[in-house]
Amino acid sequence: MLTFEGNQFQGTQAIIGKLSSIGRVQHTPKSMDVQPSTDPNSLVIFVTGSVQIDGGNPLHFCEFFQLVSNAPGSYYVHNDVFRLNYGL
Amino acid sequence: MLTFEGNQFQGTQAIIGKLSSIGRVQHTPKSMDVQPSTDPNSLVIFVTGSVQIDGGNPLHFCEFFQLVSNAPGSYYVHNDVFRLNYGL
Repeated sequence: MLTFEGNQFQGTQAIIGKLSSIGRVQHTPKSMDVQPSTDPNSLVIFVTGSVQIDGGNPLHFCEFFQLVSNAPGSYYVHNDVFRLNYGL
Repeated sequence: MLTFEGNQFQGTQAIIGKLSSIGRVQHTPKSMDVQPSTDPNSLVIFVTGSVQIDGGNPLHFCEFFQLVSNAPGSYYVHNDVFRLNYGL
């Protein structure tokens, strides 16, 4: 499941549809934190940094995702939440 | 487990020690996203907003945590990652 700026997308097709609609995106990651999740086969990952969309001004972003292994060496994204962080 | 600005704290005592060392904190949350995690008893929660520490300037923050239920109506924090988001 993807939550992108508060909008939910569930399933491969809906998520790929959303991601490919965004335009040219350049991420500049600044931090990445990883923790084991509740299940020994899953990790939670938290990334912050800045992102430019179609060459615009850089904006702060933060993104959380949970990777789950369903076979040795193979992971899928179970959760994904993306937010811009602007306007104090 | 708590990861606070890249520093890891594990276990109740270490986490409470860190949190109580920070000073007077005022959070102004701006967004909250919730998704079901891999386990039917757990939720992942993602919050962004601004925070003021000891009355200083507001800073962007983002925080992810995972709540796990170990009894009906009872939850504990299994994962917690906190980051400030500044300096483009």
